[in-house]
Amino acid sequence: MADRAASASPIVVTTPQELRSLTAGWRRADELVGLVPTMGALHVGHRALIEAARRACDRVVVSIFVNPLQFGPGLDYPSYPQPLEEDLEQLAQLGVDACYHPAVATLYPKGFATRVSVSSGGDLWEAASRPGHLVGVATVVAKLFAATGLCRAYFGEKDAQQVAVVSSLARDLDTGVEVVVCPTVRDPDGLAASSRNQLLSPAGREAALSLSRALIKAGETFASGVVSGAELSRAAAEVVESEPRARLDYAAVVDPVDFQPVEVARSESRVMVAAKVEAVRLIDTALLGSPPQPSG
Amino acid sequence: MADRAASASPIVVTTPQELRSLTAGWRRADELVGLVPTMGALHVGHRALIEAARRACDRVVVSIFVNPLQFGPGLDYPSYPQPLEEDLEQLAQLGVDACYHPAVATLYPKGFATRVSVSSGGDLWEAASRPGHLVGVATVVAKLFAATGLCRAYFGEKDAQQVAVVSSLARDLDTGVEVVVCPTVRDPDGLAASSRNQLLSPAGREAALSLSRALIKAGETFASGVVSGAELSRAAAEVVESEPRARLDYAAVVDPVDFQPVEVARSESRVMVAAKVEAVRLIDTALLGSPPQPSG
Repeated sequence: MADRAASASPIVVTTPQELRSLTAGWRRADELVGLVPTMGALHVGHRALIEAARRACDRVVVSIFVNPLQFGPGLDYPSYPQPLEEDLEQLAQLGVDACYHPAVATLYPKGFATRVSVSSGGDLWEAASRPGHLVGVATVVAKLFAATGLCRAYFGEKDAQQVAVVSSLARDLDTGVEVVVCPTVRDPDGLAASSRNQLLSPAGREAALSLSRALIKAGETFASGVVSGAELSRAAAEVVESEPRARLDYAAVVDPVDFQPVEVARSESRVMVAAKVEAVRLIDTALLGSPPQPSG
Repeated sequence: MADRAASASPIVVTTPQELRSLTAGWRRADELVGLVPTMGALHVGHRALIEAARRACDRVVVSIFVNPLQFGPGLDYPSYPQPLEEDLEQLAQLGVDACYHPAVATLYPKGFATRVSVSSGGDLWEAASRPGHLVGVATVVAKLFAATGLCRAYFGEKDAQQVAVVSSLARDLDTGVEVVVCPTVRDPDGLAASSRNQLLSPAGREAALSLSRALIKAGETFASGVVSGAELSRAAAEVVESEPRARLDYAAVVDPVDFQPVEVARSESRVMVAAKVEAVRLIDTALLGSPPQPSG
């Protein structure tokens, strides 16, 4: 463990060069570097990732970068919350060593011409609903990995297709980065932690619970003996559709590796659900055999 | 300069992990690493790149990997020459520190799902004639850069669009790699060095001279006062077309940055030519104002 006192402010670096020389110095001292890529607006889910990195690594870097490349045109990029001061305060409390906070023009200078695409997340669900989204994610993560160098990188299970994409590119591009996937963090009532939750009204937040309830319903239906992927998907969909403030995008029971819909579900099949609530797009996911366990 | 005696055999490494720890050790000792990516079948052009790296860097890595991803289906991948023993002998003579020679299954394991694409090479010429070629090049070079880590990487001007792609990805993906472009090496009669030249018969080799002669002709025509890009392209094309053993693919005068055809040529415009001779596909290029200077 590093001797960094919790609540000291993290070093803020804003260019790949600065980040590279910082982490190179740490690696030279045989310190294991942990990386937690975020778009800021840090919540309890991010904190869990950072704490996992803090426990396992000697040094922790948290990147804060709202990546325009992964937002479609007309989507919520301009409205994405960016409370930088509060975020840095949280990083200090969590004992984070460095915050990588580059400007958009630093990561995407004029003439930027490169894209990283990964087919392992499949072409359905988020890939279909948000064209270009996973390419945007893969491209910026390839950049973060290159600038950070050898490290462990922490991602949350909620973005399951993103995790598949990131894991593939970490391996395929010979980055040497070890991807660590952490369980989704939920509020006591089951709502998956998301920076977008803060955009919801109290009534919207209540309606957003239909997503985790859909996962629970699919799990219960499966536990009662139903194995038809179509039937289980329908059970999940109906929960969201019965909520007037929610507009279902998709509900599906898929193979956990290739994200194709399954005919016959197993307990390792993944339930995925996406919906819009008050113009805020929300997603949630769980393995069919391990649905959310709300305490409420 | 490293204290490595010329003609000692290079260390041969076959996995990204081995290469990474080798170069990490060198960087830890503050040694500058030079990388020369090749597909083997080393010729005088490769030797010039290696010598440039040897002069400027403390350590030199030459990769030898015939990259299936950059060959189209049915193209000359299976027949591409692979004289590994002779190549290693040359590397020893040139004082190369390490040879990175991975197996195809190492770089492209089952489930490989990632592609790197770069739009800066344009969508014409090699991009159009060899669909997927530049994506294959970009993907493998991104892997070589990630496994080598911070380095200077040496490429030849002959593959001008490839150089544009590689330079863009080195910058865009925050690799920290400095791309160095070296002039095309030519035989005394003007033929550009290429591993594929050895596949030509003596008569084919004679016909192959039409490519460099086309570049010379364009340069002479420009020097005589012609500035029409179309007219200069036609002058170059006619040289290849008048050679019965050569089948012209394209001859073009283009902008040196975006590779689009120019209406009004300047001395920095690039002439590009591609043709098939005896089923061997050859390319050549030069700036309009700096055509090849054959001594013959």
